[in-house]
Amino acid sequence: MFQRFDKLQIDLPMPDKADPAAAAAVQELMGGRFGEMSTLMNYMNQSFNFRQKKKLKPFYDLIASITGEELGHVELVSATINSLMEGATSSSDDPKAPLAPGLDAPNLHHFIVNAQTSMPGNSMGQPWQGDYVFNSGNLVLDLLHNFFLECGARTHKMRVYQMTSHPVAREMIGYLLVRGGVHTLAYAKALEEITGVDVKKMMPIPDLDNSKYEEAEKFERLGLHRKLFTFSPEDYRDIDKIWVGNHPDDGKPLEVEIGMPEGGEKPDFEAKPEEFAPGYSPEDFYDIAAKLQKRM
Amino acid sequence: MFQRFDKLQIDLPMPDKADPAAAAAVQELMGGRFGEMSTLMNYMNQSFNFRQKKKLKPFYDLIASITGEELGHVELVSATINSLMEGATSSSDDPKAPLAPGLDAPNLHHFIVNAQTSMPGNSMGQPWQGDYVFNSGNLVLDLLHNFFLECGARTHKMRVYQMTSHPVAREMIGYLLVRGGVHTLAYAKALEEITGVDVKKMMPIPDLDNSKYEEAEKFERLGLHRKLFTFSPEDYRDIDKIWVGNHPDDGKPLEVEIGMPEGGEKPDFEAKPEEFAPGYSPEDFYDIAAKLQKRM
Amino acid sequence: MFQRFDKLQIDLPMPDKADPAAAAAVQELMGGRFGEMSTLMNYMNQSFNFRQKKKLKPFYDLIASITGEELGHVELVSATINSLMEGATSSSDDPKAPLAPGLDAPNLHHFIVNAQTSMPGNSMGQPWQGDYVFNSGNLVLDLLHNFFLECGARTHKMRVYQMTSHPVAREMIGYLLVRGGVHTLAYAKALEEITGVDVKKMMPIPDLDNSKYEEAEKFERLGLHRKLFTFSPEDYRDIDKIWVGNHPDDGKPLEVEIGMPEGGEKPDFEAKPEEFAPGYSPEDFYDIAAKLQKRM
Amino acid sequence: MFQRFDKLQIDLPMPDKADPAAAAAVQELMGGRFGEMSTLMNYMNQSFNFRQKKKLKPFYDLIASITGEELGHVELVSATINSLMEGATSSSDDPKAPLAPGLDAPNLHHFIVNAQTSMPGNSMGQPWQGDYVFNSGNLVLDLLHNFFLECGARTHKMRVYQMTSHPVAREMIGYLLVRGGVHTLAYAKALEEITGVDVKKMMPIPDLDNSKYEEAEKFERLGLHRKLFTFSPEDYRDIDKIWVGNHPDDGKPLEVEIGMPEGGEKPDFEAKPEEFAPGYSPEDFYDIAAKLQKRM
Amino acid sequence: MFQRFDKLQIDLPMPDKADPAAAAAVQELMGGRFGEMSTLMNYMNQSFNFRQKKKLKPFYDLIASITGEELGHVELVSATINSLMEGATSSSDDPKAPLAPGLDAPNLHHFIVNAQTSMPGNSMGQPWQGDYVFNSGNLVLDLLHNFFLECGARTHKMRVYQMTSHPVAREMIGYLLVRGGVHTLAYAKALEEITGVDVKKMMPIPDLDNSKYEEAEKFERLGLHRKLFTFSPEDYRDIDKIWVGNHPDDGKPLEVEIGMPEGGEKPDFEAKPEEFAPGYSPEDFYDIAAKLQKRM
Amino acid sequence: MFQRFDKLQIDLPMPDKADPAAAAAVQELMGGRFGEMSTLMNYMNQSFNFRQKKKLKPFYDLIASITGEELGHVELVSATINSLMEGATSSSDDPKAPLAPGLDAPNLHHFIVNAQTSMPGNSMGQPWQGDYVFNSGNLVLDLLHNFFLECGARTHKMRVYQMTSHPVAREMIGYLLVRGGVHTLAYAKALEEITGVDVKKMMPIPDLDNSKYEEAEKFERLGLHRKLFTFSPEDYRDIDKIWVGNHPDDGKPLEVEIGMPEGGEKPDFEAKPEEFAPGYSPEDFYDIAAKLQKRM
Repeated sequence: MFQRFDKLQIDLPMPDKADPAAAAAVQELMGGRFGEMSTLMNYMNQSFNFRQKKKLKPFYDLIASITGEELGHVELVSATINSLMEGATSSSDDPKAPLAPGLDAPNLHHFIVNAQTSMPGNSMGQPWQGDYVFNSGNLVLDLLHNFFLECGARTHKMRVYQMTSHPVAREMIGYLLVRGGVHTLAYAKALEEITGVDVKKMMPIPDLDNSKYEEAEKFERLGLHRKLFTFSPEDYRDIDKIWVGNHPDDGKPLEVEIGMPEGGEKPDFEAKPEEFAPGYSPEDFYDIAAKLQKRM
Repeated sequence: MFQRFDKLQIDLPMPDKADPAAAAAVQELMGGRFGEMSTLMNYMNQSFNFRQKKKLKPFYDLIASITGEELGHVELVSATINSLMEGATSSSDDPKAPLAPGLDAPNLHHFIVNAQTSMPGNSMGQPWQGDYVFNSGNLVLDLLHNFFLECGARTHKMRVYQMTSHPVAREMIGYLLVRGGVHTLAYAKALEEITGVDVKKMMPIPDLDNSKYEEAEKFERLGLHRKLFTFSPEDYRDIDKIWVGNHPDDGKPLEVEIGMPEGGEKPDFEAKPEEFAPGYSPEDFYDIAAKLQKRM
Repeated sequence: MFQRFDKLQIDLPMPDKADPAAAAAVQELMGGRFGEMSTLMNYMNQSFNFRQKKKLKPFYDLIASITGEELGHVELVSATINSLMEGATSSSDDPKAPLAPGLDAPNLHHFIVNAQTSMPGNSMGQPWQGDYVFNSGNLVLDLLHNFFLECGARTHKMRVYQMTSHPVAREMIGYLLVRGGVHTLAYAKALEEITGVDVKKMMPIPDLDNSKYEEAEKFERLGLHRKLFTFSPEDYRDIDKIWVGNHPDDGKPLEVEIGMPEGGEKPDFEAKPEEFAPGYSPEDFYDIAAKLQKRM
Repeated sequence: MFQRFDKLQIDLPMPDKADPAAAAAVQELMGGRFGEMSTLMNYMNQSFNFRQKKKLKPFYDLIASITGEELGHVELVSATINSLMEGATSSSDDPKAPLAPGLDAPNLHHFIVNAQTSMPGNSMGQPWQGDYVFNSGNLVLDLLHNFFLECGARTHKMRVYQMTSHPVAREMIGYLLVRGGVHTLAYAKALEEITGVDVKKMMPIPDLDNSKYEEAEKFERLGLHRKLFTFSPEDYRDIDKIWVGNHPDDGKPLEVEIGMPEGGEKPDFEAKPEEFAPGYSPEDFYDIAAKLQKRM
Repeated sequence: MFQRFDKLQIDLPMPDKADPAAAAAVQELMGGRFGEMSTLMNYMNQSFNFRQKKKLKPFYDLIASITGEELGHVELVSATINSLMEGATSSSDDPKAPLAPGLDAPNLHHFIVNAQTSMPGNSMGQPWQGDYVFNSGNLVLDLLHNFFLECGARTHKMRVYQMTSHPVAREMIGYLLVRGGVHTLAYAKALEEITGVDVKKMMPIPDLDNSKYEEAEKFERLGLHRKLFTFSPEDYRDIDKIWVGNHPDDGKPLEVEIGMPEGGEKPDFEAKPEEFAPGYSPEDFYDIAAKLQKRM
Repeated sequence: MFQRFDKLQIDLPMPDKADPAAAAAVQELMGGRFGEMSTLMNYMNQSFNFRQKKKLKPFYDLIASITGEELGHVELVSATINSLMEGATSSSDDPKAPLAPGLDAPNLHHFIVNAQTSMPGNSMGQPWQGDYVFNSGNLVLDLLHNFFLECGARTHKMRVYQMTSHPVAREMIGYLLVRGGVHTLAYAKALEEITGVDVKKMMPIPDLDNSKYEEAEKFERLGLHRKLFTFSPEDYRDIDKIWVGNHPDDGKPLEVEIGMPEGGEKPDFEAKPEEFAPGYSPEDFYDIAAKLQKRM
């Protein structure tokens, strides 16, 4: 089971301009084969289907707890896309057609289907698919996959970073490069425990330190590259059997933290009457909401 | 953000016989268009992309909190499939081919790809897809969709119930009929608040009371059809602006409960050496696990 | 069985400029999940598979007759796309590459695959799929679905309307908003007959009257929002058991009309030699056609 | 535009036993790449997008009128599947699970999703897709495609015929082999008009006469292999510029008939309470229907 | 079995400017339904599954040997796409975002996923699919399909030619028009052998001679339109039973050549550090490569 | 470019009984995500798109040459499926329906679409897809992927081995386990050259030696686990910079062999008149073939 908290993992900066093309690109990090929906669903299914979870508890706990964090990553990428879309149709060259700017955007579904918000698909507007999940049940193979998946995800994040200098996109990517780095290292260490192979020596893939990205470096200064959270108030604490020793980059100790990061505020987005979202007459909704608020 | 608890929403009975065909059918309730992955992902995306969440907080809280519950539903259906597969290859007519029973099962991927566990696909083995998510951003339309989605999900559950009398499948379906009924009613009430239409009078669709299913009736006797959980220790409490009044079936008061149900135990599944899951030599894993347990 | 008439449901205005981006957007109304192919195929399949069509004849007649109308809607959207493409490559910046303008259009298949005409896919160029059809066989659920489907289709039409002020697109959308409104109301009334719930009170979704759109209002002045056609010379007349009473908007009587609307002219489109359509040498075709005309 | 008649193209015999596996196979003839949905949608789109329909009227009329017939073919295949399913769950080994026979059928969706009726997908349960449509706009290429498509469709029909001796399936296949043969010949003659190549000499593909199939031969005796219908009361009459001369098999004259065949009765299917279709309580529906019948 | 040679079928000119939009269009010729992957995979599967290959050796040899050539065609189209991408991000308006030009390209995957190289998908970025393969096992039908497939492929090539005057794209298309013409004629002759129908009289489809394209005419002057290669040092020589007589265009003799064309140089592409391809630090790779070179 | 040889990589034993269910399972090794089409297409695309192939020649040569071998692997799996299908409809319980046994097989397309031969799809009949190809352009990441891909492919092979004791299937799997092992080791060594990580120490995944499989052990006795072929008469010889040292299992020297294995005979399959393959009247084909043989 899961409980929810109405927070993002970090505060996102306020966007100062819309960038629907960047939003389309960031969709790859949400619903692409190597996006956050994929990491989420891979680990979720692997944890559901884990055999011998008691005997192999540290490994189970690792995959199960990272699932918890990935839920928040999907949420964070979604919020980023929404921020990048904010204002996309604030001014149209065609006064009779307020959504006309959508015709110039790469992803028409953002305007026709999703009311200028994120969708569970990739940068080409193709839907995320269940067969992006790899779950062989063989622990070594699943861990090897997860290590590879994190490296692929890192590559796509670095490329999207190179595609746009929009500060909201970069803040999110900086953060996720750090957290993704933690997961990559964790899977590398788990693989090493079983096979004895020093997998972490391959890192980073691609071969460019997070420290080279100012938006990532900021979070590393806070030590976030050394912390693995249980994402549970009580369970999954045996991740500390795997997450031990020092970080290979700075030599400082790895730490397990019970629970989750403090988190940031979830942005609230204004009505878009030209999309009929949340409805044509915001005033009516105001009345309904007011009526409900008075209850109790 | 989300936190995880290592519990299922209910205790599942121990399976006494494998039924891979029933497992294939139950996949529809996991990864089909009207399965739990769909309800989860619909509400998750709708809550990510909700506009004016402050002004329309009760509606936002409703969709956001049900997302939390749906995570546990996917988990429960997955555990059911895994239970139905338990023992599927315990005896093979062909002693040289221990997985030969898989050739008679409807879903070959269960044996070749997933090591006899659940997969994010439907009863025909087709992967779940991101375009099963409906998220128009128009609140009335999204609520109408959710009401319809829950009714469609109920129909499929009732049909799978009719397909198999396996007690694990029926325990899960009985529980989900009750909880799905709560969500249907909640969306009906939300729709009524905005439109004034007494949508709940359409219920149940199909027109057969949960009380006719002994496995559902059992949970209704515990009052579970009247409880809506926040699935959060702190947030989403404004669901009590919508979840008010009495239940239309028994006239007893609807109740909001902070947090989540007490839950049941997650089953642990044995190694399947014939699938190389979690690995060929369970003994080796035992050593590794023992070594890790000694740490700290 | 069906018979065909070489007419469109309405006359479309002659286009004065090409707009391939608008054509790409209008594809959503043809082959998107909520496009006319979807309404057509949903009702066609539901009518094929209807159980107890004699006992429940008014409901069967309703779904079966609307199928007839939807065929014409697909045809009308297709003609609109073709009109929007007309002239798309009439002048190219690159004299050696007459199709070069296609490189700037959102849908490259329009130029490489379909010779600048419509295709059975959506605004992202993704093919229409058979699993967009919902057909549970449960009448209440199917009617609820159809009501929802029409509301979703309306939302997408309104958004595409907001994306382009091209007069051909808007004429078509204006007409379909009116006819879609008739179908929505018809399904609402059918649902009400069975469940007693006043579903039509939810309408319109989104909450903006057709009268606000001049291209729709024009057709409402002709009373087209109050007419349901049998789309059959002889059958499906029991739709008058459901299509009774007055229209909720203007209080005037609902009318059933035997057959179909008078209709308009189907546009004929010129050869596109740069696409080799219908062939490189129109003159040759002229000879062949002349030869055939002489026969008999 | 199209009008509908509540008739099948032929009378189907009453089924005396259910055969869900044969029903699954027949789905290929409905929603497979070479099924009737494909022929329908290919010709429908080609007729929508035809360039120079006036100048090339005989060719346009040919494709446009065959579209009309194909609508009835899809309907006929659907009715066949429904007949083959009739009684599929009339007795279950598991008295508590009336749908249990569905677990042994190849297509679980027939039982969970479609209430034992046809679906717009193929014999493997995969949905029909819009990219099965070929519509290049080049007339010779489109006609060549159509000739090929009809030959492929014939091959699949002959193979499904070889898979089952169920009389309902064979009656339908016998009829469609004859009518498909007409369409194949028509496209061959159209190709010959333009290119001068005697394409019809390739026929039949595969190389086995319809006369070898008693269920087809029966319809040939009625001359149905020599008749091309306009499927329109008024339009598409220039098909008689192409459909001229004698039939290559028996040397008798080809005939154009205005309108459509006389047709047969559409079967009505009983309620399936175990599927909740059309609803759990047929009695309630009876009351509603009776109330509606009384109107006017 | 197959052996590989490190050569392209022809020398491609050096590109002088990047054109990512043209590259996106050329993808249709690689991974579209009528692209080279499709011709390759159709013939490969047909040759794998050919029945009675000894008795029908000339036909088998034909399909089997053309498979060999198609491998090189896919390679050539891929090299063309890579050339068209060369320099696509050599200058970015946003100095902090070197991949920003990718946001203006039609295919975002070219930049995020494939490091500015070709992908096995079509012009809309949709993946090539196995069901593009037609392989009925009926020889006449398969040959008819192949003839149609080649004509469809020719049409798409001619349209992409019309879309871009980029010399690399046109050189490749010119060559493939000639070689595709050879395959079309070969399948036409094979069909004629069996059926007696003079299929080749339909050619060319579309009706415009290769001689009208200067980049094709150049290769015809070398006689490449009259040569069929065995693409094998020893096998498949019975293609000379089918590839006999004179070419219908120029009346000169058709020739079978053992083996394959002489071929051209494969272009080598520079590192793209902004894509981390082949790695961030080309120097490191240099060291590794140098070390390996020293071995032995 | 590629040349073809009319040989299989090994001789396959003659099948003594058909096993359509095993054939369906073996499809996973052909067209599944981890089947031979995937390894082929991954390496083919990576070699097409390789950057700095001169500087990094040993790595390029490795991927390029393995591509050559994979072509033969797809061919071998296809031949195995065809052998497993041989005789599948030799006797039918229903004398009027010779293909009736197909109704009991898991893959209906094998009987309706492919005339009892292999298809480019997986064990569930789903088509192979282009997005199974991973090609990031980053060399370390691509090599890591390839190592993972080979391990996944090995897992699926071992499971299919466990599903059937059919000698044809096992002969093929035994051989491919050995050759796949060579490729896994080669990618591991390549990765080690660049990263210094002793990846090969992870092998084998799953953790069961090839020597445990008698059909694999047989080929290891011939030393096939130590040989890497260039699959080219002239090129790709720098694989000997990577394929150096001794085999980790038996300590014997790794060897590079120019060219390819000697290979075995390709089986020829009889006509299947009930599938109209290669045609209804084998006699006619005999005449045609005889006529062609007489030429020259």
